[in-house]
Amino acid sequence: MTGRLTIVGLGPGAAELQTPQARAALATATDLFGYTTYLARVPEQEGQARHGSDNREELDRARAALELAYTGKYVAIVSSGDPGVFAMAAAVFEAIEAGAPEWRSIEVEVIPGISAMFAAAARLGAPLGHDFCAISLSDNLKPWETVVRRLEAAAAADFVIALYNPISRARPWQLGAALDILRGVRAADTPVVFATAVSRADETIEIVPLGDADPARADMRTLVLVGSSATRTIARPDGRAWVYTPRRAGAVAVGKAEECAI
Amino acid sequence: MTGRLTIVGLGPGAAELQTPQARAALATATDLFGYTTYLARVPEQEGQARHGSDNREELDRARAALELAYTGKYVAIVSSGDPGVFAMAAAVFEAIEAGAPEWRSIEVEVIPGISAMFAAAARLGAPLGHDFCAISLSDNLKPWETVVRRLEAAAAADFVIALYNPISRARPWQLGAALDILRGVRAADTPVVFATAVSRADETIEIVPLGDADPARADMRTLVLVGSSATRTIARPDGRAWVYTPRRAGAVAVGKAEECAI
Repeated sequence: MTGRLTIVGLGPGAAELQTPQARAALATATDLFGYTTYLARVPEQEGQARHGSDNREELDRARAALELAYTGKYVAIVSSGDPGVFAMAAAVFEAIEAGAPEWRSIEVEVIPGISAMFAAAARLGAPLGHDFCAISLSDNLKPWETVVRRLEAAAAADFVIALYNPISRARPWQLGAALDILRGVRAADTPVVFATAVSRADETIEIVPLGDADPARADMRTLVLVGSSATRTIARPDGRAWVYTPRRAGAVAVGKAEECAI
Repeated sequence: MTGRLTIVGLGPGAAELQTPQARAALATATDLFGYTTYLARVPEQEGQARHGSDNREELDRARAALELAYTGKYVAIVSSGDPGVFAMAAAVFEAIEAGAPEWRSIEVEVIPGISAMFAAAARLGAPLGHDFCAISLSDNLKPWETVVRRLEAAAAADFVIALYNPISRARPWQLGAALDILRGVRAADTPVVFATAVSRADETIEIVPLGDADPARADMRTLVLVGSSATRTIARPDGRAWVYTPRRAGAVAVGKAEECAI
């Protein structure tokens, strides 16, 4: 007997940003797995078992969930944001590839969610309005030199850059080093955004120029966005500001836009 | 009197991937603006005016919506996927910055949605499981040399690459040129995904090696994903396959992972 495993994106936090597909999966699962902090966002349900674990136990959690799904249960693993973006989905497929061949017959479904960078961008205006990239600053699973190489390439290509996993107690200096690299390439007045706990009760959003961007503004719940050379702020009468990146880049002869048809 | 303008992300197509926040905004708007194809996805509602236009009229649409919002209406502009990703949000802020100073007092809200790259990734497994970038192949608003420079940088940095706006009748050769550039850098067996109309009735998803990736597989509704050097496929007993990118990159001394806490 083979069950099902669903990897559910909870979105950034607010229930109104969670898809109906995610809710349906959470309501029908027999077993929920996840980092305890994320599991706490899912309402308790009679008869549904909950298996919470620490956020450094991803691979063990994936294996335990696969084992249970293989016995015929309907297992859901929860992930904040989108489960495919620096989250649980990759861990599950790593576990499958290295695991028992039978696991390949388990029905695995991934339910996308609103990732932190898009929730943050929406609060600001349209900072991701043109070509962008997402880089995890964690050097737990990749050498710091790889992070540096990607930051340099992203800066040279003039991408808007979203930095995930900017800082933690065990990784206190990486965000500062990353901002230093970017300061060497981008103008000091490039808008940088520190978006913390977006869509949750303790949300804070700060817009600062790259020249003044202090890594101490970030914690583990922060998404850092660094504008491209084209990213702009629009001052508003009430003192707030919008941040956006125009669709136009460099000198172009043709004038007509074209909305993406996807 | 100043009204409100909401830019609503409809998600990739399926209603079950549309957030409750998006639905609430659509239900309460007095006026809906959008590319007619996207407007057709929103159920008709008594007393709600609909202003459809062509997908090459983004800036005019943004201006018309702002003018109406300024008169006190509650205007919603719809966008497919996430409105901040190669879509209407940037056009609206361009219009605001260049437009009447009074427009800066309009309450503008952006409601994020599931962008095509994440809907496609979820169908496949976890191809965006590690650092990635998104590039629009349209050279209507940026010189082709900028696209080339970004593709080369993304390839050198070993990002997973999502290509938006891959092809259209007016831009028939750009996707082929982009794939040629990537073939010069990445291995011929790198997984490439053509994901068309994801989550809609006519969805098709094809996984092909970069060496055989034929641009003719794409149309305007296609999102093209090109794996990094680490992206892998897992064959399944029924002939299907998962595609994922491991969280680990390069040689690392430390073993413990860490789930993103955003």
